[in-house]
Amino acid sequence: MARLGFVGLGVMGSRIVKRLLDAGHAVTGYNRTAAKAQWLVDAGMTQAATPRAVAESSDITFTMVTNTAALRHVMGGEDGLCAGMRAGTIHLDMSTVDPAVSREVADRVRATGGSMLDAPVSGSVVTLEEGRLTLMVGGDYDVFKKVEPILLDIGPKATYVGGDGLAVTMKIATNLSLAVQMLAFSEGVLLAEKSGIKREVAVEVLVNSAVASPMVKYRGPFVLRMPDEAWFNCEMMQKDMNLALELGQQLEVPLPSTATANEFLTAARGMGLGQYDFAIVFDVLARLSGVDTSR
Amino acid sequence: MARLGFVGLGVMGSRIVKRLLDAGHAVTGYNRTAAKAQWLVDAGMTQAATPRAVAESSDITFTMVTNTAALRHVMGGEDGLCAGMRAGTIHLDMSTVDPAVSREVADRVRATGGSMLDAPVSGSVVTLEEGRLTLMVGGDYDVFKKVEPILLDIGPKATYVGGDGLAVTMKIATNLSLAVQMLAFSEGVLLAEKSGIKREVAVEVLVNSAVASPMVKYRGPFVLRMPDEAWFNCEMMQKDMNLALELGQQLEVPLPSTATANEFLTAARGMGLGQYDFAIVFDVLARLSGVDTSR
Amino acid sequence: MARLGFVGLGVMGSRIVKRLLDAGHAVTGYNRTAAKAQWLVDAGMTQAATPRAVAESSDITFTMVTNTAALRHVMGGEDGLCAGMRAGTIHLDMSTVDPAVSREVADRVRATGGSMLDAPVSGSVVTLEEGRLTLMVGGDYDVFKKVEPILLDIGPKATYVGGDGLAVTMKIATNLSLAVQMLAFSEGVLLAEKSGIKREVAVEVLVNSAVASPMVKYRGPFVLRMPDEAWFNCEMMQKDMNLALELGQQLEVPLPSTATANEFLTAARGMGLGQYDFAIVFDVLARLSGVDTSR
Amino acid sequence: MARLGFVGLGVMGSRIVKRLLDAGHAVTGYNRTAAKAQWLVDAGMTQAATPRAVAESSDITFTMVTNTAALRHVMGGEDGLCAGMRAGTIHLDMSTVDPAVSREVADRVRATGGSMLDAPVSGSVVTLEEGRLTLMVGGDYDVFKKVEPILLDIGPKATYVGGDGLAVTMKIATNLSLAVQMLAFSEGVLLAEKSGIKREVAVEVLVNSAVASPMVKYRGPFVLRMPDEAWFNCEMMQKDMNLALELGQQLEVPLPSTATANEFLTAARGMGLGQYDFAIVFDVLARLSGVDTSR
Repeated sequence: MARLGFVGLGVMGSRIVKRLLDAGHAVTGYNRTAAKAQWLVDAGMTQAATPRAVAESSDITFTMVTNTAALRHVMGGEDGLCAGMRAGTIHLDMSTVDPAVSREVADRVRATGGSMLDAPVSGSVVTLEEGRLTLMVGGDYDVFKKVEPILLDIGPKATYVGGDGLAVTMKIATNLSLAVQMLAFSEGVLLAEKSGIKREVAVEVLVNSAVASPMVKYRGPFVLRMPDEAWFNCEMMQKDMNLALELGQQLEVPLPSTATANEFLTAARGMGLGQYDFAIVFDVLARLSGVDTSR
Repeated sequence: MARLGFVGLGVMGSRIVKRLLDAGHAVTGYNRTAAKAQWLVDAGMTQAATPRAVAESSDITFTMVTNTAALRHVMGGEDGLCAGMRAGTIHLDMSTVDPAVSREVADRVRATGGSMLDAPVSGSVVTLEEGRLTLMVGGDYDVFKKVEPILLDIGPKATYVGGDGLAVTMKIATNLSLAVQMLAFSEGVLLAEKSGIKREVAVEVLVNSAVASPMVKYRGPFVLRMPDEAWFNCEMMQKDMNLALELGQQLEVPLPSTATANEFLTAARGMGLGQYDFAIVFDVLARLSGVDTSR
Repeated sequence: MARLGFVGLGVMGSRIVKRLLDAGHAVTGYNRTAAKAQWLVDAGMTQAATPRAVAESSDITFTMVTNTAALRHVMGGEDGLCAGMRAGTIHLDMSTVDPAVSREVADRVRATGGSMLDAPVSGSVVTLEEGRLTLMVGGDYDVFKKVEPILLDIGPKATYVGGDGLAVTMKIATNLSLAVQMLAFSEGVLLAEKSGIKREVAVEVLVNSAVASPMVKYRGPFVLRMPDEAWFNCEMMQKDMNLALELGQQLEVPLPSTATANEFLTAARGMGLGQYDFAIVFDVLARLSGVDTSR
Repeated sequence: MARLGFVGLGVMGSRIVKRLLDAGHAVTGYNRTAAKAQWLVDAGMTQAATPRAVAESSDITFTMVTNTAALRHVMGGEDGLCAGMRAGTIHLDMSTVDPAVSREVADRVRATGGSMLDAPVSGSVVTLEEGRLTLMVGGDYDVFKKVEPILLDIGPKATYVGGDGLAVTMKIATNLSLAVQMLAFSEGVLLAEKSGIKREVAVEVLVNSAVASPMVKYRGPFVLRMPDEAWFNCEMMQKDMNLALELGQQLEVPLPSTATANEFLTAARGMGLGQYDFAIVFDVLARLSGVDTSR
C-alpha cells in the first residue's frame, strides 16, 4: 500500500487526512502550527518536521493550502516538498489557485522526476463528513488512474477533466455560481419578505424548490442565523471570483453575473462584513432595501 | 368526497388532472381546445362545455392558465367560473400572475360567496410525474387546511406561505433564481470550455456539484442538446422576471442579478432565439465569447 | 402671429411660457393651481379657466405635465383641450410619456381635425434660462416646419427626429444615460476619495474631464452638497428608466447599463432617499463602501 | 530655462513634445524606434541614444509609455533614466499605470536624489491639438509648483490632486466613465434606431444633449463610421478598467457600472473586435439586438 503524505492540515485538509486514516492508509502529515494536528497524531498520523520530510517518507503527497504564496512556500526551498521528491512521486494539489500557477508548479514537480495532478474538491466540511465530497482531477490520465482508488476513499467520485490545471479551472468555473446563486437567493427572500411573507417561510420554500442546489440548502438558513465562524468568507469567495474574472478576460468569456455578484462581495467588505460567510450578501441587499438585519 | 373541477388543461394542468384521477377523485375539466383533453376523458374525466359548467358541478375548482388576460377570461363573463360558483366553493388558482391581479380575482370569488387560494407549483413536468412537485399556497389558512389532503395527491408537500397573493409572490421570488442560475451555469461552462475542458465534462461536473439545483440538473444538459420543444421559453421566463422586477421596484428591493439575467433574455430574443427554452442564454453568451453554437 | 396656449405651468412649463412672452408671443395659460401662475399673468399671460378654454382661444397649444394620467386628464373630458380644438389646431406635447401613449393622444387630436407633435425638451431649468435648451420633435414634418420658428424662441435648436412618438422615444433614449453617467461618476469619486484624494478635488477634476457632460457638470457638485429641492428626484428618474427598459424589452434591445443603474435608484428609494435628486446614487454607493455621507 | 527630456514618443508623447518645442523649450527625446521621431528632430528636438542619455542632458524628464513593463524598462537598467538622474532632477511620468507601481517608481527616482510626479493626461490627440488637454499631478506640492509653468505649455490646466500616485489614481477613476458612458450611449442609439429613428439622427441628438461629454461628442459619430485606426482600443480600455476594478476591490468600493461595461469589452474581444476603438461596444450590443453592423 502506498505511503501517503499531506501538507496543510486546515479545516478541510485535516478532515481529509482523518478519512484516509479511517480507510486504513498510512499518512505522514505536516502543518505550520504542529499543535493543531495533535488530534490526527492521536488518530494514527505520523507528524513530520518539514514538507520535505513528508515527501521523503511518502509515495504520494498532497497539498491543501490557502493561496498561491502558501503553495509556492510549501513546494519550494530547502525544506519544501520538491526537495524531498524523487522519480515516481505522485503529487496531488488540492488547493484552489490560478490555473497558470498550478501548471507552473506541475512543471517543477516534473523536474524532480515526479508527476502532479491538480485535484481540488467541490463541497464543504459537511459534504466531506457525509462522504459526499466530489473531486475533480487534472493532469496525466494514467497517473490519475493510479491514484483513483485512494481518491475514492475521500469521496464517492473523482472526475478526470483533462490536462494540467484543468481541474482547478473547473473548480473556479463551478465556484462562481456559488456567489451568484447566493445573491439571487437573497433577492428572492427579500422580495418575499417585503411582500409580507415571513423570512423563515421564504427560506423554507426556496430550500425545497427547483433552485435548491446543495449550496442553497446549506447556506439558505444562514440568512436566518449567520454562523459564528464563516464556512467560506467574503475574502475567500472573492479570491475565487477574481480567479474566474481574470480567466474570463484572458479567454475572452464575458461573465456578467459573476461580475455583478463580485461587486456585492466588495460591498460586503466595504460595509465591514467581509469576515462573514459570503451568505452575508443577503445583509448588503437587505440594507439597500431598508430591511433591518442587526445580528 | 369533494367534486373537483379544472380549467386549463395544458402541459402541466392536464398532468395534474391525471394525478387527481389516479388518486380516485372525480374531476370535471374544461379546455378551450376540447380535443386536447380527450386522453383525460378516456382516463375518466368529465368534460364540461364552459368554465361556468365546471364550477356548477364542482365543490372545489382549479385554474391553471398562461397569463392575466387568460385568467380574467376564464373567471369572468357569462360563461366564466365565477358565474357558476356559490357559497362554499373553494377555488385554487395555480397560474403565475401579478400578485395584485391574484388578489383582485380573490375578491371577485369572495363576492360569489366562495373563497380563493393562490396555489402555484414549483417545478416542471418531470418533477410532477416523479411525484415531487411542491405547491405553495396563499389565502385563508382554514381554507388551506380543508384542501390540503387533495393537494397532497398532487405533490408531496404544500406549504402555506400567508395571505392572498403571497404564494404567487413566493413563486415569482423563486423563479428569478432560475434564469440567474442558468446564466451563471453558462458562464462556468464557457470558461471551462475555452480553457480546454470538453463541454460534456464541464456539464457533468457542474450537475454533480454544490451548485446543482434541480434546475441545473434538468437544464444543464440542454447546453449540449437544446430540446425541440421548450419547457419554458424565453418569453415565458421573461414574463416572470418582469413580475419580479416590477414587484422589486414597488417594494423597493433592488434585484441586481435578476436585472442582469433579464437583459440576457432580451438579448436571446433580439438574436432570434426567444422561442427556445431559456437555457438558450448559454448560446447568447457563447456568441459573445466567439464560441460556435450552431444547432 | 399665431395665438399660443399652454397647459401645465410647473417649474419648466412656466419658464417656457415666460420665454415665449419675452419673445413677443400672446399666450393663454392654464394651471390646476391658478395662483402659481400669477407671476406669468403679471408678465402678460392671459389665464384661462380650463384646458378647453385654452384651446378655444389658441391656434397652437402646448402641454407639459408630469405623467400619462395627467396628460390624459388635461386632453380628455368636457373641459379638456381636445374639446376646444378644431381643424387646423396644432398641439405640441412636451411631457415625457410612454411613446405608445403619445401616439394614442396624437390620434385623439387628429380626430378633432388638429395635428399633434411630441416635443419633449432635453435639459434643466438652468439650460433653459441660459437659452440652451434643445427640443426634439416627432410627428408630421410639415407641421414641424410650421411651428419651428416658435420653438426657436424657446431654445437654439429643434431637431426633427421622425414620426409620431419618436421624439419622446429619443428623450427616453437620452435620459437613460443620465442615471448611468451619474452612477459611473459616483464610482470614480469614491475610488478617488478612498485612495486619499479630497472629494472636492475629485469632483473638480471630473467636471473638467473628457467625461464631463452637461449633466456631470451640473450634478457633479451635488455629491458635495445635495440641493434642498431635487431637480429630478429618484422617482421621476426611475419613471424614465422604466419607460426605457419596457421599450427595450418590447423592441428586443438589451440595456445592461440602464438595468444596473436602475437597481441603484431602487436602492436609493429602499434606503429612504427617493425624494432626493437622483445624484443621491452617490450616497447609496458611498454606504456600500463604508464612506460616511451624513447630510 | 530648464532643459527637458522625453522618453516615449508615441501618438500622444510626440505631440506633447511638439507643443513643448513650439513653446520654445529645448527637448531631448528618445524613442525605441528612432525613425518615428525624425519629424520631431526636424522640428528642433535633440535625439538621444538611450533613456539614460536623455536624463543626463536634462533637468526635467518625462515618460509616456504604454504599460508597467515598458515603464520599468525605460526607468531601470544600465541605460535607463534612473541611471542618468542626479540630485535635483524632476521626473514626470505621464503613463497610466497601477498607482502602486507609480509609487514604487517614485521611490526609485528619490533614491537617485531626484523627485517624481505622476502626471497623466485626460483627453485625446484632438483635445491636445486644440490646446485643451488637462493634466492631473500627484506627488510633492512644491515640486509641482516648480514645473507648473511648463505643464501650462502643454494644456490650459494642471490640477494638483495629492501625493504620490494619486494623479494616476484620478486618471483611472475618470477613465472608467469612458467605457460606461459609451455603453449607455450605445443603448440609447439602439433603442432609438429600433423604434424607427435613423441612427444618424439619434447620434445627432445625443451629441447635443445633456449627456454629451467630450467623450460622447468625439466617439458618438464612431457608431456611424468606425475609424480605421482606434484612438483607444478595447485592450487598452480594458487595461484601465482592470486597474479601476482592482483598486475598487482593494479599497472596498463596489463599481457596478464599471464591472458591467468591462464585460462588454471582454465580449468585444470575444467576438473578434478587440482591435477596434472601444466605441465598438455599440456593435456588441447591436448584435445582441439583431441589428446589422457589418462594416
